Amino acid sequence: MAAFRVGARAVEGRFQGNGGGVASSRLLAPLKNPPNREEVTLRAKPRSNHLVAAAKLRRRAGPMPLWRVAVFASVALNVATLAVLLHHYAASPPHHHHHHHSILTAGSEGSLATAARREDRTTMAPSTGKPAVTTDSVINLDHGDPTMYEAFWRETGDAAELVIPGWQTMSYFSDVTNVCWFLEPELDQQVRRLHRTVGNAAVDGYHVIVGTGSTQLFMAALYALSPDAGEPISVVSTAPYYSSYPAVTDFLRSGLFRWAGDASSFEGDNYIELVCSPNNPDGAIREAVLASKPGGKTVHDFAYYWPQYTPITKKADHDIMLFTVSKSTGHAGTRIGWALVKDRAIAKKMTKFVELNTIGVSKDSQLRAAKVLGAVSDGYDAKVGAPRLFDFGRRKMVERWSTLRAAAAASGVFSLPEETSGFCNFTKETAATNPAFAWLRCDREDVDDCASFLRSHKILTRSGAQFGADPRYVRVSMLDRDDAFDIFVRRLSSLK
Amino acid sequence: MAAFRVGARAVEGRFQGNGGGVASSRLLAPLKNPPNREEVTLRAKPRSNHLVAAAKLRRRAGPMPLWRVAVFASVALNVATLAVLLHHYAASPPHHHHHHHSILTAGSEGSLATAARREDRTTMAPSTGKPAVTTDSVINLDHGDPTMYEAFWRETGDAAELVIPGWQTMSYFSDVTNVCWFLEPELDQQVRRLHRTVGNAAVDGYHVIVGTGSTQLFMAALYALSPDAGEPISVVSTAPYYSSYPAVTDFLRSGLFRWAGDASSFEGDNYIELVCSPNNPDGAIREAVLASKPGGKTVHDFAYYWPQYTPITKKADHDIMLFTVSKSTGHAGTRIGWALVKDRAIAKKMTKFVELNTIGVSKDSQLRAAKVLGAVSDGYDAKVGAPRLFDFGRRKMVERWSTLRAAAAASGVFSLPEETSGFCNFTKETAATNPAFAWLRCDREDVDDCASFLRSHKILTRSGAQFGADPRYVRVSMLDRDDAFDIFVRRLSSLK
Repeated sequence: MAAFRVGARAVEGRFQGNGGGVASSRLLAPLKNPPNREEVTLRAKPRSNHLVAAAKLRRRAGPMPLWRVAVFASVALNVATLAVLLHHYAASPPHHHHHHHSILTAGSEGSLATAARREDRTTMAPSTGKPAVTTDSVINLDHGDPTMYEAFWRETGDAAELVIPGWQTMSYFSDVTNVCWFLEPELDQQVRRLHRTVGNAAVDGYHVIVGTGSTQLFMAALYALSPDAGEPISVVSTAPYYSSYPAVTDFLRSGLFRWAGDASSFEGDNYIELVCSPNNPDGAIREAVLASKPGGKTVHDFAYYWPQYTPITKKADHDIMLFTVSKSTGHAGTRIGWALVKDRAIAKKMTKFVELNTIGVSKDSQLRAAKVLGAVSDGYDAKVGAPRLFDFGRRKMVERWSTLRAAAAASGVFSLPEETSGFCNFTKETAATNPAFAWLRCDREDVDDCASFLRSHKILTRSGAQFGADPRYVRVSMLDRDDAFDIFVRRLSSLK
Repeated sequence: MAAFRVGARAVEGRFQGNGGGVASSRLLAPLKNPPNREEVTLRAKPRSNHLVAAAKLRRRAGPMPLWRVAVFASVALNVATLAVLLHHYAASPPHHHHHHHSILTAGSEGSLATAARREDRTTMAPSTGKPAVTTDSVINLDHGDPTMYEAFWRETGDAAELVIPGWQTMSYFSDVTNVCWFLEPELDQQVRRLHRTVGNAAVDGYHVIVGTGSTQLFMAALYALSPDAGEPISVVSTAPYYSSYPAVTDFLRSGLFRWAGDASSFEGDNYIELVCSPNNPDGAIREAVLASKPGGKTVHDFAYYWPQYTPITKKADHDIMLFTVSKSTGHAGTRIGWALVKDRAIAKKMTKFVELNTIGVSKDSQLRAAKVLGAVSDGYDAKVGAPRLFDFGRRKMVERWSTLRAAAAASGVFSLPEETSGFCNFTKETAATNPAFAWLRCDREDVDDCASFLRSHKILTRSGAQFGADPRYVRVSMLDRDDAFDIFVRRLSSLK
């Protein structure tokens, strides 16, 4: 295991300097790809890191006034270490375990890995996510990690680049006149602007509440909609429902709300119905199924109601609507979601939840999200030639769904939901739905647990059982990087 | 109210371009302070904002190909609007209400404010926090908003500046080999490095768990330490205790844990004792008061165990220790806290909490925190001339405490905790404690609610009642900007 971890770390670095999505080692071919704009930005600022390296070496080796010597020694050491580690990686392909209800299984740290990491860290760049894949890797499509979008944002130059001076965004407060006092005004503006551009949701008369991802806002909505006293309110959603809904509702055993399962079989007067549309996991277009009652509330999860996944058929105007940059622009690591909330009292209670839970939301990420959303709107505003995210996303999704359907057909033992289509008010064309997840059914009679079957072929997916559905189904992410997706469909098409 | 809000917004902008802590309007004296490095960085990137402005104007006024004209029109409009608004501000001083248990009271939005904001937004900079103050403002020292530190970070140039290209930090994952899979390796490294530099906590053999502020980690610790079944565990802390502890413990009515009040009067076998040292609100150096029992656990909140507030007398090595950048470096808006956790199983459960609550922690803020902590360590490493945060912080705190004690003495109706001191292993000198909050007692016989008394003099503080203590006490933040602190002490010294 140690060799894998070391290898994974060494190889992660490859994505950093690489203009395209496919890995090609910077170490082995340093001049193959000229440095792009982002790389230059990063390279312009290595001074402090080098000083850190120098200081560390000095501490190990006793006083050494010539720090330049130490810098060169450090760089040489790292290059040598990485070369050795790359060799290890080639020899030992990665191996993953998979547990239910866990976003990932963390391995224990081997001593070699730890030592190697310590060497490497002095010049370490930001993380890039899961390790790179090879043709016989385990392919992890259990989570909707939206790294497919990296390729788009690499092409946008500084349009979405953020610079934060050391003294900025230090206060807890963003706008003391707003119900959501920790919402950066710039993000408020760009959220409204993007919805006006796309036409997927009404914003006039709505409060924007920002959250640490839409998951936090989901909890905030439950908190805000729960009665002040009495029994916990029932939280329901039509199966198959997003696997996080029951887990997040129940993990603290709240006396305010509790998971009550499939909405279609629910009987009672007081409930919160979660409506996810397009639905996670199966991409279906959904509406509330419970008849409107005085004690009934709905929360609309619109994480996937964007033009790359589905035609925009109407401007939604529900009481509480949740969105996230994770799935709209692909910036999952930024952890920014927002809620559009009609009622002021509910908006205040949701704000209170975020205040008690995390005292607001990262301002740095809010500014980043504002920058990114602004760049997306720019693409559809007057700015000729600006990159257009939804065009990229739709092209990718159409390609991938076509490849996946061909692979399932070639295999003969898998089936997929039928394609639906509609007129998109945003693109002004009829378009098909291309969901962010494939809801894949294994039709082999001897397989009653599709996730286990695929796992035995080194494809990690999430079992239908976790979505309140048949375990012959699995949910597969369609948003991973090209290399992982390509290996997945090739491997799938060969299964009989 | 509308006039205040408009004024507040217009005046907030003053902090942006100002080298020092004291407000002097950029509009009224644009050439008084030459632009500093950070300003240049910001000014170098206005292109996309201007295009937004141009596009907006075009939409309002019909097609207009000459966008440069629109840019100039927009700028002129903003300058004119701001001039008008500054006049409003001068005429109507800000007014705040104060509610118990609320981080602030949000006002409703006046239509003039909304309209003015819309004009202003096209060129809006990041928020700066609470509005600027004037000699007859309400001074809000209810929260520990650490804006005192802005002055330090303005002087550090690009040492703590962060650049994030559009394609970075998109994945949910940071290091799949780590127990805390969403922890950026660079932050892990800088956290350990800073603790080694300062000597305030052991890091070898500890897991670092990152959170959205230490508040989220506080909840994560309760979740991790609660029993799997049975009655909720009792959560206790010696009074006066941090007012958030009961609020955060109980707001979801969890079946896992519940607030049980003052640790010193607690009787029972199963509990989680919270030990905050130096203590919020009174700055006391604390140790656990409950005798160690098999069912007893402790969480150490070390938000203030840094050299600017207290001598570092030992390297703490408890099971769970919480820290935050909010109080160590002043970056509250960044929302980054970390826990040092000895036990691997506890570290995994805390990670699970953050996964279920927010699916990880903003990577942007993690990288920012790493950069900032790195800059702090650099100051005490070999880097001659690098700015030294703890020197700045201690100098400020010593000055402020001395001013505050003089003001209390001049007034004659307030008392403060006695100063204590000890030998600091970090500075190698004997130093006094200079807490981040003043625990102020009103000695007037006719005043039994000190917070109300001070509020009537336009000083907002937090009542002792919220800390499980006598309402003749209040907690006052010592970390606000110079102008607010100065007005506060001047006003305090005049009260009889």
